[in-house]
Order: sequence, then C-alpha cells, then structure tokens
Amino acid sequence: MSCSLHDIAVIGVGACKFGENFDLDVESMLVAAAYEAYEDAGVRPEDIQAAWIGIQYPFTGLSGATLADPLKLYHIPITHTENYCVSGLDSFRNACLGVASGMYDMVMAAGVEKLTDQAGRGLPTAGFGHPVLLRGLTAPSAFGLAFPQHARKYGTTKEDLAHVAVKNHYNGAAHPKAHFRREVTLEQVMKAPIVSGPLGLLDCCAISDGAAAVIITRREIARRYRDDYVVLRGLGLSVFSNLLPFDPDFDYLTWIPTVKAAKMAYEMAGIENPRKEIDCAEVHDCFTITEILNYEDLGFCAKGEGGRFVREGHASIDGDVAVNPSGGLKCFGHPIGATGCRMVYEITRQLQGRAEGRQREGAKTGLVHNLGGLGGVVCGVAVLSSEDRYR
Amino acid sequence: MSCSLHDIAVIGVGACKFGENFDLDVESMLVAAAYEAYEDAGVRPEDIQAAWIGIQYPFTGLSGATLADPLKLYHIPITHTENYCVSGLDSFRNACLGVASGMYDMVMAAGVEKLTDQAGRGLPTAGFGHPVLLRGLTAPSAFGLAFPQHARKYGTTKEDLAHVAVKNHYNGAAHPKAHFRREVTLEQVMKAPIVSGPLGLLDCCAISDGAAAVIITRREIARRYRDDYVVLRGLGLSVFSNLLPFDPDFDYLTWIPTVKAAKMAYEMAGIENPRKEIDCAEVHDCFTITEILNYEDLGFCAKGEGGRFVREGHASIDGDVAVNPSGGLKCFGHPIGATGCRMVYEITRQLQGRAEGRQREGAKTGLVHNLGGLGGVVCGVAVLSSEDRYR
Repeated sequence: MSCSLHDIAVIGVGACKFGENFDLDVESMLVAAAYEAYEDAGVRPEDIQAAWIGIQYPFTGLSGATLADPLKLYHIPITHTENYCVSGLDSFRNACLGVASGMYDMVMAAGVEKLTDQAGRGLPTAGFGHPVLLRGLTAPSAFGLAFPQHARKYGTTKEDLAHVAVKNHYNGAAHPKAHFRREVTLEQVMKAPIVSGPLGLLDCCAISDGAAAVIITRREIARRYRDDYVVLRGLGLSVFSNLLPFDPDFDYLTWIPTVKAAKMAYEMAGIENPRKEIDCAEVHDCFTITEILNYEDLGFCAKGEGGRFVREGHASIDGDVAVNPSGGLKCFGHPIGATGCRMVYEITRQLQGRAEGRQREGAKTGLVHNLGGLGGVVCGVAVLSSEDRYR
Repeated sequence: MSCSLHDIAVIGVGACKFGENFDLDVESMLVAAAYEAYEDAGVRPEDIQAAWIGIQYPFTGLSGATLADPLKLYHIPITHTENYCVSGLDSFRNACLGVASGMYDMVMAAGVEKLTDQAGRGLPTAGFGHPVLLRGLTAPSAFGLAFPQHARKYGTTKEDLAHVAVKNHYNGAAHPKAHFRREVTLEQVMKAPIVSGPLGLLDCCAISDGAAAVIITRREIARRYRDDYVVLRGLGLSVFSNLLPFDPDFDYLTWIPTVKAAKMAYEMAGIENPRKEIDCAEVHDCFTITEILNYEDLGFCAKGEGGRFVREGHASIDGDVAVNPSGGLKCFGHPIGATGCRMVYEITRQLQGRAEGRQREGAKTGLVHNLGGLGGVVCGVAVLSSEDRYR
C-alpha cells in the first residue's frame, strides 16, 4: 500500500479539560482525551494500528507504554516523541508520516503533561544547555528579552502586548476546555504584577495540566467515517540550535525555526499569501511578545508590524487571521507534550464549524504553530483544510 | 512523491568505538558515527533532509537539537525518539517511515548514549512504574528472574547461559569497535562473581558509551550511491505494559513484545521459517538468559530449546543463524539510545560482506532485534536483505 502526505485526513479529536488538574493523573487525562477522540471519529480502540505520544515530564525514562497502559493499546507500535515544547506537534507529524508511508491506515497522535506535579523539579529553569550561563534563565526571562529590541526598533509597546492577552482571553472565555475562562481588560494586563520585566502575570501562560488526542487516517478511508473530515495540506518542522542564546547574530526579532518550518508547510500547501489564505491559526503564545513575533515570522504581516496587527484587530476572531480562537496558551496554559495536539484539536473543530462560541465564520484553512526551546530552537507548523477536491 | 516501506534502502553506516569513553562526550561520539556514515554512503551533510535521534539520558528535556548542534544539521526536521532500550531502533523505524512517506529522500537515523556520565543518577534502578514495588528492582535482577523458570521447565543450565557469553566474546574479539575485545572461557563465565543470582559478571552487558548512525534513502536513489546497498524487508515494533511485573499471567518464559514485533516484521518480509531464511541476527543480549529467550521468541528454535540451540552451536558464526556476530551487547555494552542503530550498522556490514574478522559467509538476510523495559515492555525488529530484485 502506498500513500502520500497529501492523502492524510483527521477524523477525530479529543481533549480533556485543561487546568490545575490535581485530581487527575497523566493516565486519566489521556483516557479522557483519547476516548473523546475515538467517539468523535467513530472508531474503536482496536482500530488503532499505531500511535505516537508527546510528553516531556517526568524525566525518568519514557516509552510508548505511557500511552499503551492507560488506553490498553497493547501490541501495536507506539513511539514516544520529545522535542521540547513541540513534543505534541511532532507526535502528530510522525503519525502523519506513518500513515503516508502506507504502513498504517489508522493511527493516533496524543500529547499530555502534568505540570502541576513538576513543582520543585526545576521546571521553570533551563537546566540544559550551557552549564553556567543558562542556569537561572527562565522561560519568561528568555522570551521577555525579545521585547526591548522589538520596542526599540519598531515602536512596539507594552499596550500592544496587552492587546494579545485581551484578545486571547476574550476568545478563551467561551471555550469549555480552557484553564482560564474569563475576559481581561487592557488595564488589568498592564497593571498585573511583573513576572520578568517587561512581562507581567497576564503576559505569561500558566502552569497547567492537559491532554489531547487526534485520530489520523487516509482521505479515502476518512470518507467512510464522516463527511467533514479535515485534510493535511502542509507540514514542516525545523530544528536550530541549543546554543542560540550565545549566537552573536541572534537579534531576538525572529524565531528562526518558525520562518523555516512555515516555509516548508507553505510550500507543501501551495500557500503564497498566508494573511489572505489562512482563516484561523493556533500559534504558540507562551508569552504575549511571542505571539507578536509569530505574526511576523508566519507571514501574517511584515516584520515589525506585529504590534499594529493585533492592535488594529487583524488577529481577532473576525480579523484577517483569527489567531488563537481557542484562547491559546494564554487560556489553556502549556502542558508541554499536550499543546501541539490541543492546537490540532482546535483547528480541526474550527474547520468543521464546531467551535461553539468561538467559531471563526466560514473557516476553510487553518494553521497550527508550535514553538520550543529558549530563543526558538524547534518549531513545527501544520496547515489543515476543510476542503478536499476529492470529497 | 509517493514511496513505500518496500522501497527503503540503507546506503551508509557509522559507529564510534564503544567503551568507557571518558574522553568523549555525546557530541563527539555523534560526530564520529555520523561522519563515518556520511563517508560510507558518499553523501554530504547537506544532503540530509531529516533525521531522528534516539537517546534517553540525561533526563533533562531533549529535542532534535541534540543531533543538530554537533552535526550542524540546522533548519531541517529532527525528531528525538525515546522508547526505553529500543530508542535507537525506533529512530531507525521512524526514519524509514519518513522516507516511505515520500516526504524525504535522504535521512539519518542516529542513536547515542553516554552511560558513564550517569553514575549516581540511579541508572541501574528502575525508578519508573510502581512507586514502591519497582524500587530496587534492577535490570539484572529483573531479567535474572527468567532463569529459574526456564531451568525448571526446560532444563536450561547455567552452562547454557555461559555458552552465550563465550560465543559472543569469540565474535566480538574480532570487532574493532567493541568495548570488550577478548575471548572468555566457559569456566571464566561460570566462576565470575555473581551480580544478581543467577547472573554473573560475564552474563551481563556493561555500562558503555557509544553512538551509531545510519543513512537511509529510497532504493532507486540508493543505486546511484553504491551497488551493495541493503534493503529493508520487514519492520515491526510492539509495545506492551509497564505493569508487566505485576501481571499474574506473566511467566518469564517469553518476552511478549518480541513475538509480536517479529510477527509484524516477518509478515512484511514474507519470512516463514526464520531459522532457515535468516543468516545473521543482532539480538538484544542485555543478559545471557535474554538471548536464550530471544532465540525462541524470534522463532530460531522452539520454545524451551534455546539452551540447546546455543550449546549445539546453532547460534555460532557458522551455525544456522549467526547470532550477534558483532559480539552483541555482551561486547559492545548497551549505550541505550545507540544500540538499535549499532545493530543496523552490524547487519548492514554483514550483508555487504564487510564484517572483517567476524563475517558470516554469504549472509543475504539479516535481522535486528532491540528489546526494552523490565520484563520486555517494548520490542523492535527489522529484517534487512542484500538482495534486491530491482538491482
């Protein structure tokens, strides 16, 4: 059997409620996400021929059994993928390659993380990379360093950052699975306590738990399961360097892997004008400044115009590109391995017109953008579409 | 571009010297392995379009950058795969799927581990799984539990175990990259100090460092690079449960994932009689008793006859199946992420007639078997061939 990446379809998605799930363990969250995905797709667990699982913590030896045990998915191939914060989307990517290889007809990509169990284990501190220079460089401090440079060169303001938070909280308030389901005002964001200057509490995504799952098959099989299956149009992953923070040419104005991964995905999808052709996008807003750079790096606007893009409403649910219609990492937090699959969940539902309360009207083409590592070491991009010329 | 798993070819392999590489770090070992593979294949680093890297330690957040940085393989997709001791072969498997998907023409699978840096980090103790019952259950004690059962039921003796060590050390003595390059006698193995009864020092693989790399492409491209490329005939991976040690039905007589993964690989390869059709095999001899079970689980002999199989010389370099012609984990140690790719390295060279000093004469079909987890949680099997009907 031979297939290709242009024949890949998503037929089911599931996610547990994201949040501080003190009453749920990794296994429980995976069960919630996977069984919702099974039901959504109309498949049975025994239909799954292979799976990929994205998870980063705990750091103590991981394998496919992390997924096999809670789901009783025994005696099939399951790969654990880990790629910093892109672990989830890379499980989706490898699952797509698996189906496209012709080896498997029906697979699952899943992701999970229980970050609230990682307190005290050094989660927020970068312990890897350079043994001295990176100690103490936390995610907020590393990403926050992008702001002064963007502000100096392009006039981006703290209020521009706040617009990202206000927009995402507006979207997420309607999402039944979000960690934070409330709107915030510009004033609240601007006056929030500082986490790591210039980023305040509401500029940062939270420490949340969550899981998500996606059922992937070939397009010709998808048709038997549902009319509104979603097809893969583009897929890219790009890896740069752990040494980025020490690269004298690194200017904090671009997350280079985003540009590279987007180029791969756009070329495969035949997308020439992302701002016009993409209706909705889940992008990696670990911090508000990250989302502003994402607009630019993904080609939604020119370099330097990210602040204006959000300020003028072009990223709003009815703007040029509805960015983070789910509420993004701002409202879901960032359970590391889960995020990429949670983004695919959201875009799939948007393209199916099933994103109640937060629907981008008439969404036909959607994008997923998952970024990882300090300074942007790894990035994955996927383009999905509700349109299938073979439908 | 569309391809299939039946079109996959290995065109280059490389490995560093395995051992207690106190003077080499993960990066140095990867460079040694990868550049040997480049040279062997006749490709340049810039020809590599995607890569997969198997590594398990350190436990502190891993990504594709682990491979990208030492090799300067920037701006391409690199996935880190982790699947207990099968992390290496699963990187090979996902790399094969990647080429078969039609997305990439030329990729690298690599694996590495620096175990000598992990001393004191609890390496030999199973810290995962059940929080109380598994504490203190080390790999030698877990695998060693298989012996009394096999001895009671099938009459397997400690001398049978020793035959495995003698055979593998005989083969490995000739291997320029092995950690241990000396023969041992039956008496030495039998009288070696006990590590965890009944397993003595020479029944156990050592704590070693190492790296290996494999260059994979499509068959029609392989022909442009060399005449003696090796083709993939079968590929299987099977995941069972972390809870295996608590399964009352588990009888220690079979590593179930091996049976399942071999079935997948044999079906794909069209192999009906492994003992007759497979000329050489690198199998996971983490302990001598494991290799005896492997003979049976892989169908080289009937269940219970593993002891006799090695005792009568059927696993020797000129036996029915030359098992571990490299010397196996016994002589190479088991740098976790490296092992699977190191096995592909050996079988490729055997099938090319390039295994100087340890060559299985006329080897045409070879097998790789990589096992992981206490009680056998994960297993990968690949079947490779020097014969290509399209050649």
